[in-house]
Amino acid sequence: MSRGFDEVISKVKSCGMKKIAVAAAQDSAVLEAVREAKAQGIADAVLVGDESKIREIAAGLGMDLSDYRIIDEPDMAQAALTAVKLAHDGEVEMYMKGLCDTKTFLKSVLDKEVGLRTGSPLSHVAVFDIPGYEKLLFLTDVAFMTYPTLEDKANIIRNTVPVCNACGVTMPKVAPLAAVEVVNPKMPATVEGAELTKMCEEGQITGCIVDGPLSLDLAIDPEAAKHKGATNRKIQGDADILLFPDIHAGNLVYKALVHTVPGVKNGCILTGTKVPVILTSRSDTFETKVNSIALAAVVAAELN
Amino acid sequence: MSRGFDEVISKVKSCGMKKIAVAAAQDSAVLEAVREAKAQGIADAVLVGDESKIREIAAGLGMDLSDYRIIDEPDMAQAALTAVKLAHDGEVEMYMKGLCDTKTFLKSVLDKEVGLRTGSPLSHVAVFDIPGYEKLLFLTDVAFMTYPTLEDKANIIRNTVPVCNACGVTMPKVAPLAAVEVVNPKMPATVEGAELTKMCEEGQITGCIVDGPLSLDLAIDPEAAKHKGATNRKIQGDADILLFPDIHAGNLVYKALVHTVPGVKNGCILTGTKVPVILTSRSDTFETKVNSIALAAVVAAELN
Repeated sequence: MSRGFDEVISKVKSCGMKKIAVAAAQDSAVLEAVREAKAQGIADAVLVGDESKIREIAAGLGMDLSDYRIIDEPDMAQAALTAVKLAHDGEVEMYMKGLCDTKTFLKSVLDKEVGLRTGSPLSHVAVFDIPGYEKLLFLTDVAFMTYPTLEDKANIIRNTVPVCNACGVTMPKVAPLAAVEVVNPKMPATVEGAELTKMCEEGQITGCIVDGPLSLDLAIDPEAAKHKGATNRKIQGDADILLFPDIHAGNLVYKALVHTVPGVKNGCILTGTKVPVILTSRSDTFETKVNSIALAAVVAAELN
Repeated sequence: MSRGFDEVISKVKSCGMKKIAVAAAQDSAVLEAVREAKAQGIADAVLVGDESKIREIAAGLGMDLSDYRIIDEPDMAQAALTAVKLAHDGEVEMYMKGLCDTKTFLKSVLDKEVGLRTGSPLSHVAVFDIPGYEKLLFLTDVAFMTYPTLEDKANIIRNTVPVCNACGVTMPKVAPLAAVEVVNPKMPATVEGAELTKMCEEGQITGCIVDGPLSLDLAIDPEAAKHKGATNRKIQGDADILLFPDIHAGNLVYKALVHTVPGVKNGCILTGTKVPVILTSRSDTFETKVNSIALAAVVAAELN
C-alpha cells in the first residue's frame, strides 16, 4: 500500500493534471522540477518570464518546450504579476516562484488587484514523510510567520487543516508544541497551547483536534506517551500537525529533520492564499521541489 | 577507530574510575545504569538513600551491592544534601539524581553550604552522536535555562567549552542558531548571535570559535554550506556546539533527534557546577543514562 508522499502523488494523478503559473521561469532547478512533475502526471505549467532565457536553459537541460505555454515577460516584477494574475483569474490552479526574489514574489501574491489574498494571513506548511512515523507530519510555521500571536496561531491551524484534508487526513490532531507538556505561566508558548485547545473545544477552531501544550515526544512517539502515562491526552504520539511556538523552533526542527534523518521526504507550500503557492528554496533538493508541486496539486484538486 | 560516545567511553576507561554520589538511590533505572557504568569501568558509585529500599530493588535486579558504599538516609531531601556534600567535599567526583524530584535535587546542587555553586549559572548540555555527522554535537541549552539573555548565552558557552575539551575537542566551533544566518533586527536571536561572535573576537569568550547567527543547515551540513556559498564563514557545516535561542527551540530539536534519527546516541549533564551533575529523565533510555554517566566521568577526569 502506498503511504506518505507516494500516496499524495497517487492521489494527484487520479485527479487529472492541474496547472502552475511560474513567475520568472528562467531557472534551471525550477524548470527541471516542472518537467519532472509533468512527466509524472502531477502538474502542467505555464512559463512566464524571459522567453529567450527559458529556451536557452531548457536547451541545456534537453527539455522539450513544445508542450508548454510560454508568456514572454523579461521584467521580473512584471512576470510575477502576469503569472499571479493567471492564478487569480482561475486560468491555472497553482502559483510558483522561479528566478524571482522572495520579496517581489510575495508582493505579487499580496497584490490587491491580481494577487491571491483571502483575508487570512499567509502561513507556510512543511509536510514530512519520516521513516518510522506512520503518517504524514504537517509542520507549521517553519519559514514564514516569525513570532505568531495567539490569533495568528489559530489562523495557522485554520490554514493547515485543509492541507491535511487534501492529503487524506480528515480530522487532524494538532499539537501546539513547547519544551514541556504542562502549562507554565512563565512560558507563553505553553499558555497559548492551552488556549488554542480551549478555542478548539469552544468551536472557534474547527475540523481538527487540538491538544496543547505538548512536548515533541508526546506528540510523535506513542511509546514515550505510554511511558510517561499520558493516557488522558487527546494526542498520544499520533499528532498530524506540529504547531511551533516561533520560527526559530520550527525552522531548526525542520532543518534537523532534513539534514539528519536518512530517507526523509518533504514538500512545502504557502497557505492562506486563493490557490496553493509553491515557494521552494534554492537549497531544496530536486525531490523536495517535485514533492512541493505534488502537495500544491493535491490541495488545488481539493479546492476545485 | 572509535569515535563519538565510544571514544568518550574509551577515554574514561583509561582515566581510572571516578565516583558518583547518588541522591535517593532507591530507583531501579538509576541502579541499573550505575551497575552498568561500574561493569564497563566507567564509574563507581556511593548510594545515598533508603538502604532497605535500595537493597530490595537491587535484589530484584540481581545486583550485587557488596562492592558499593551505602549511606542510609531515608529522607529524600536529607539524602540529597548528604550526597551532594560528598561531591562538595571532594570525596566523589560526580553527583547524580535518583528517586528525588528535580526541585529538591536542584536545591541541593545550589545549597550555599554543601552544594556545588561556582558563581556561574547552571546550564545543561546534551551531547549527541548522530550517524552521518562525523563528530560529537553539543546541544545547549535544551532542558534547563528557559529564555537565556545575551550574558546567559555567553555563560552557557563558557560552561560548555570545558565539556568539549574533556571529550577531546580542543577549540570547539560554536553556532548560535536561528531560523536564518543573517542579522535581522526584528529577530533578537540573530542579533545576539552576532553579538556573541563579536564577544568571542574581543576575547570575552575564550577557548572557542563563535560564528553566529547560523541556520542549522549551515551549522551541520557541509554540503548545504557549500551550496549556499558560505565560504566566508568560520563554520561551514562543521559546528561542535549548537547554541539555541531558547528552551523551546532547543528541546524540540533535541527530541526530534532522539525520536526520529535511527541509531542516534546521546548523554546529558548539568554544567556550571563544581563537579558534573547527572540529571537523567525517566524517559531517557538505559543507554542514554549510561552515556550521561560516561560524559560526567570524562568531564570529572578533566577537572581532576
